[in-house]
Amino acid sequence: MKLVTFIRSGNTNEELGLLRGERVLPLADAGFVYETMNDLILFSSPEERAAMAAAEGESLPLGALRLLSPIPRPLQDVLCLGLNYADHAKEASGFSSAAFGMELAAPIFFSKRVSYSQGTDAPIPAHRDLTAQLDYENELAVVIGRDADHVSEAEARDYIFGYTVLNDVSAREIQTRHKQWHFGKSLEGFCPMGPCLVTADELPWPPAQRIWTTLNGRLMQDSRTDCLIHPIAEIVSVLSQGMVLRAGTIIATGTPKGVLMGLEGASFLQPGDEVVCAIEGIGALRNIVE
Amino acid sequence: MKLVTFIRSGNTNEELGLLRGERVLPLADAGFVYETMNDLILFSSPEERAAMAAAEGESLPLGALRLLSPIPRPLQDVLCLGLNYADHAKEASGFSSAAFGMELAAPIFFSKRVSYSQGTDAPIPAHRDLTAQLDYENELAVVIGRDADHVSEAEARDYIFGYTVLNDVSAREIQTRHKQWHFGKSLEGFCPMGPCLVTADELPWPPAQRIWTTLNGRLMQDSRTDCLIHPIAEIVSVLSQGMVLRAGTIIATGTPKGVLMGLEGASFLQPGDEVVCAIEGIGALRNIVE
Repeated sequence: MKLVTFIRSGNTNEELGLLRGERVLPLADAGFVYETMNDLILFSSPEERAAMAAAEGESLPLGALRLLSPIPRPLQDVLCLGLNYADHAKEASGFSSAAFGMELAAPIFFSKRVSYSQGTDAPIPAHRDLTAQLDYENELAVVIGRDADHVSEAEARDYIFGYTVLNDVSAREIQTRHKQWHFGKSLEGFCPMGPCLVTADELPWPPAQRIWTTLNGRLMQDSRTDCLIHPIAEIVSVLSQGMVLRAGTIIATGTPKGVLMGLEGASFLQPGDEVVCAIEGIGALRNIVE
Repeated sequence: MKLVTFIRSGNTNEELGLLRGERVLPLADAGFVYETMNDLILFSSPEERAAMAAAEGESLPLGALRLLSPIPRPLQDVLCLGLNYADHAKEASGFSSAAFGMELAAPIFFSKRVSYSQGTDAPIPAHRDLTAQLDYENELAVVIGRDADHVSEAEARDYIFGYTVLNDVSAREIQTRHKQWHFGKSLEGFCPMGPCLVTADELPWPPAQRIWTTLNGRLMQDSRTDCLIHPIAEIVSVLSQGMVLRAGTIIATGTPKGVLMGLEGASFLQPGDEVVCAIEGIGALRNIVE
């Protein structure tokens, strides 16, 4: 099922729902009452989720509501993979060999501060006072469903609740100026997610989805989520040997080739630009820089 | 005042208290009822805190209780400064010029995953299956008291609730192997803090405290917290230009010279080792590796 967080037009309170085509079934109306997506992830049982997926009831057209990020307030900062598609690793080293040119034997992990996540159709703040090198990164984000502690690669799938699209918005000169990438990845509003959270049963394992990005309608990134250098099973296993990945943890698995820092002579994002990050089977996350 | 989180002997529930010499005054007994230190930071007024500091009542001897980390469950991951003492930057570049040898014009920010923090006298897990290069880093940690958004250096002081001692425990080969430092700083149990949270009014501005560390009784680090390359006012100001530092945010300001990776031929931490991180005016954070 495709889970969403939304607000009905003329309303202010967040609700959870099931996205079915162009309509949303409010979960509370169908008897499944959770205050937030985090609560649903942490406290719903597999049996309850099976019943949820089959729920019937009166649904709302998308025009009668506003989709938020499926997880508007992540429980912890987002764990991120760096340079996890071979073609992107190559373009990044061309941009700054000092910052990105490196041997890639082990996965690169960093984190992205996130106090809130905005959803599709919400703006991305340009932070013009701080950056002239604003960039997008379309990524498949994995959401952990139960605490993962010393998990093997073979078991990893059982710990995954679902997937969403995450735009790992980046300020390139801040990312490189401060040596460690954290700050340049963590400006306010740099973590759009959406349009929905797809439960793991809806995608193949490992997910082999087309992942593509358009900038003002022009195709910029176009790859597949099974081209990861370090696949999801490895990521979950390696991290969980050292830290318990709590239920609700979000892991952004890296971006393919085609970001702006990889294009010689390209200008970076400007106010008014429209970025659409799409992943087959999940949907399109559309944001305008403002 | 020196705020603590503690559990009375024979009890299981956490309480907040005031540390006065060798005794603790339970805050709830004095009429100040907050469930957690985060609640106290977020919701107490300056007037209430002034009354708190003057509270009288029956206090408990330290022997009748166990101190926890003053903030056992930080609201977000800890923001950290890298290479923020000149002498430590030099010893680190000697350890791995690829990982640590760099120009230091801008502060280095990274983050430390923290699902929980343990207090003084609690063990530090050795993670022997993952690391043979376990190290300590004694750091002055700043706790933000109210949301800091676009704060100037001159205003920074007004946003600081208080200070504690944080041991930024690090697994060196993990820190360097994964290129970005995050994972090697974020293993389970790598964030001891304590023994108390000292309110900002108790220390000079900027804090000019002796900071020193002993390993099995031997003096290893010995510096002063006014030797920071990037002082606290700059850190708060720079970060708050791009991200809102929420009340409760913890910033570890970096460690001075004398960590194990800086000592030629030194062995790293072993089970049984006792690390005491002390800062004048706050106290001593003592942990045994196990």
